[in-house]
Amino acid sequence: MAHTTVRPVDVIMHKRQGREHDAVELEAFLRGYLAGEVPDYQVSAWLMAVCWRGMTDRETAALTGLMTRSGEVLDLGDLPHTVDKHSTGGVGDKTSLVLAPLLAAAGATVAKMSGRGLGHTGGTVDKLESIPGFRAGLDQRAFLEQARAVGIVVAGQSKALAPADGLLYALRDATATVESLPLIASSIMSKKLAGGAGSIVLDVKVGSGAFFGTVEEARALAETMIAIGRHAGRNMRAVLSSMAQPLGRAVGNALEVSEAVDCLQGGGPADLRELCLVLAGEVLEATGLHTPRRRLETLLDGGHALERFERWIAAQGGDVGALDGLERAPGQELVRAERSGALAALDALAVGRAAGVLGAGRARKGERVDAGVGVVLHAKVGDPVVAGEPIVTLYHRDGRGLEEARELARKAVRIADAAQASPLILETGLG
Amino acid sequence: MAHTTVRPVDVIMHKRQGREHDAVELEAFLRGYLAGEVPDYQVSAWLMAVCWRGMTDRETAALTGLMTRSGEVLDLGDLPHTVDKHSTGGVGDKTSLVLAPLLAAAGATVAKMSGRGLGHTGGTVDKLESIPGFRAGLDQRAFLEQARAVGIVVAGQSKALAPADGLLYALRDATATVESLPLIASSIMSKKLAGGAGSIVLDVKVGSGAFFGTVEEARALAETMIAIGRHAGRNMRAVLSSMAQPLGRAVGNALEVSEAVDCLQGGGPADLRELCLVLAGEVLEATGLHTPRRRLETLLDGGHALERFERWIAAQGGDVGALDGLERAPGQELVRAERSGALAALDALAVGRAAGVLGAGRARKGERVDAGVGVVLHAKVGDPVVAGEPIVTLYHRDGRGLEEARELARKAVRIADAAQASPLILETGLG
Repeated sequence: MAHTTVRPVDVIMHKRQGREHDAVELEAFLRGYLAGEVPDYQVSAWLMAVCWRGMTDRETAALTGLMTRSGEVLDLGDLPHTVDKHSTGGVGDKTSLVLAPLLAAAGATVAKMSGRGLGHTGGTVDKLESIPGFRAGLDQRAFLEQARAVGIVVAGQSKALAPADGLLYALRDATATVESLPLIASSIMSKKLAGGAGSIVLDVKVGSGAFFGTVEEARALAETMIAIGRHAGRNMRAVLSSMAQPLGRAVGNALEVSEAVDCLQGGGPADLRELCLVLAGEVLEATGLHTPRRRLETLLDGGHALERFERWIAAQGGDVGALDGLERAPGQELVRAERSGALAALDALAVGRAAGVLGAGRARKGERVDAGVGVVLHAKVGDPVVAGEPIVTLYHRDGRGLEEARELARKAVRIADAAQASPLILETGLG
Repeated sequence: MAHTTVRPVDVIMHKRQGREHDAVELEAFLRGYLAGEVPDYQVSAWLMAVCWRGMTDRETAALTGLMTRSGEVLDLGDLPHTVDKHSTGGVGDKTSLVLAPLLAAAGATVAKMSGRGLGHTGGTVDKLESIPGFRAGLDQRAFLEQARAVGIVVAGQSKALAPADGLLYALRDATATVESLPLIASSIMSKKLAGGAGSIVLDVKVGSGAFFGTVEEARALAETMIAIGRHAGRNMRAVLSSMAQPLGRAVGNALEVSEAVDCLQGGGPADLRELCLVLAGEVLEATGLHTPRRRLETLLDGGHALERFERWIAAQGGDVGALDGLERAPGQELVRAERSGALAALDALAVGRAAGVLGAGRARKGERVDAGVGVVLHAKVGDPVVAGEPIVTLYHRDGRGLEEARELARKAVRIADAAQASPLILETGLG
C-alpha cells in the first residue's frame, strides 16, 4: 500500500464532497494519525465532515476494524458460546450483573474486559467493587481460567481496548463531533470487537438518559452496529429499550448490586427482570443456545443464576456473605410528593445527575466513586402517589452534593391526575 | 465582554447546528485562537462546520471585521478619492498596471499595499519588479507622500495586513476548507478593508482560471463581498468577467508589463482595454467622480494615463527608459496549430500552469520569480487559425519546465471548424 501517495487534505476533501473513502485512503489517514504524522487539526476537520456527510456501512466497518486492531484483541480461544452485551448507557442500568450469571447458567460464557467509564454513576466494575474483597485486576491466564471454570469473568482493563478510539473520542469531545451515528457506532463496536465475544446483543436506549431521544435514531444506530458486527463475523442482535425513566429503583453502586441480587433471587423490579430476560433470550438464540422464556424464568426463580453469580463473585475474591448488607451511606433524605395523583414522569437524566452529585460517578478519569451513595425511587411512571409520601430517597455522605441532588430530584418528578405506565421494551428482534 | 464564559466547543456546536453566532461568541472564539488559547483542531472543526452550514451576512461581516483589526489598518487620511480594485485572480491579469494610472489621471488616489501571492504567475509587485530599479519597499511617510504627489503608490507589505487571515488561510489550505463563500469573501475583504480605500471595485472572475466556474457562484461571492464592504462603510461596486481564457495575450511578469504599457499607449489587446475601462468607470462613479466612457478613452489614447504611469514608476526608482525593452528569457519555442479552423478554447488554468512551470510564479513563500519567462498567445478564442502557424510562444530560460509547459499549452488549445468570440464582461453594475 502506497501510504505516501495519500495526502491527508485530499482525504478530508473527499469526505467534504460526500464521496466514499476507499479502504486504502481511510487506513492511510488513520494510521498516519496514530503515528503522529497527521495532525489533530486535519482529523478534526475530517470528523466534522463525517458529521456532515455520514459514512457508508463499508466505511464504518473499515473505521471500526482499524480502531479494533489499534490495540490488543482478546482471543477467547475455544471457550464455548462466548457472548457479550452492550448497553448504550443509562441510569440505574445494572443489567450486566443479572444477565451475566443468567447467560452462564444457560450454558454461555461471559468474559468481559470492562472500563471504568465517566458518568453520573459508576460502570460495571465500579459496582462490583462495592462488594468487599472483589478484585477486578486479573492477569490473562487467570482471566481465561475463570471464564472456563465459572463461565463468567469481568476484569478491569489493564490497557485500553481499541486505544485509537480513546484518542479519537477525546478529539470529538473537544470539537462538537460526538453526535454522529457512524462515529458512535464505530466507537462502541471497536471495543466490543476487541473484547472477542462471538455473539453480541446491543441494548440501545431511547430517552432523556440516552444518546438519542427517538426510536428512529436508536434503530438507525442499532442497524449500523449490527452491520459492523456482521461484517466482522459476529452474531448480532439488538433491542431498543426506554430510558425515559431509570431502570429499576436503585441508582448508585452498592444500591444497584443489592437490586441485582434481588432480581437473581426471583424478585426485584419488574422492568429490570423483563429487560434481562429479553436480552438473554436474544443473545442465547444468536449463539445457538435457543432458550425458551419459561426456562430463563426458571433459571432466575430457581436460584441457578444466583448460584453462578456467587461462584463468580467468590472466584474474584468477593465476600458473598456480605451481599445481604452492603454498606449504604448513613445520610438519608426523603423527597416527598407535593400533591396526590399519578407519577407522570421521572426524568432519567436528572436522577442520574442527582446520583452523580452525591458522589456515585466520576467526571474525570481516576476519580474515586463512593459505593454507598445514590438514589432509591419509591414510585415509577404510572404509579399512584399521595401528597407528603416519599417518592425518592437520597443516600448521601455528610451532606455532600445534597442540596443540588434534592433540586435535581424535585425537577425529575412530574405528578399528574392520571398517568400510564411507560413501556420498557420498544423493539426486539433487530439483527 | 465575558470571554471566559464562551466555551470553544459550544461555538463549534452552534455552527454545527446551523445557528447564527452572536458577535460575542464569534469574537471570543477568534481572539482565543489568535491568543493561542483555542487550538487549531477546534478552529478547523469550526471551519468545516462553516463550509457545511454557511454564515449569515452579519456573521461574515463580523468575521471580516475581526480579521481586519487583527493587524495594521492603513489610514489614508485626507487623500482625495481613495480607490482600490480587487481581482479574484486570473491568468494574464495585468489590469492593475493600467487601471491605477487611468484612475489617477481621472482624479482618484490609488494607494495600495500589495502582497507577493502564491500562484502560477507573480502578483502586481512581482510584475513591477521586472522594471529595473523599481523599489516596492517604502516606509509609511514615503508611501503617503507619493500617494499625495503622484496619485499612485504600490508598495510590498512590510507586515501582513489582516494577519489573522493569513493564519486562518493556512489552516483552511491544510483542511480542505478553502472553498466556502463566506470564508473566501471575508478573507479577501479583510485585506481590502485594512488597505483603507474608501471605494472598492471587485473584479470577480468566472471560468477555469477562477475560484468559481459559474456566473451564479461568482455573483453570490460578489454580493457577499459588497455587503461586507457596505457594512464597513465603503462604496462598493463589482463586475463579473470571464476567465475562460487568459486576459490579453501575455502571461508572465515582464511580458505583462510590456502589454500594460501598450494599453497605456492606446493599443494592446481589446479585452484588456475593455476591462480596464469598465472597472475604472465603476469605481470612479462609486467615489463620486463620474467619468464618461469617452473621457476615459481619451485619458488612455491621449497619453494622460501613460504620463501618470511613468511618474509613478519613476517615483519608486524604476527606469522608465527601460520600459520599451524589458528583458525576455532568451529561449523561445513555438506551439503551432495542428489543424486549420478557429480557436474554440484556450484554457486559462492550463496556460497559467504553463507560465508557472516556466518559472513565472511561486509555489512557496519566498521563492524568486523569473521576470523574463512566460507565454504569449497569438490567437484568442474565435480567431481563425491555420495549420502549422504559431498559436503560442513559450519564453523559457535554458529549457526549465519547457517540456511540461509545451504539454500544458497543447492541452489548453482546442481548434474547431468555427468558433464564436468569448464574451469578456459577464455582468456590471453589481453593488
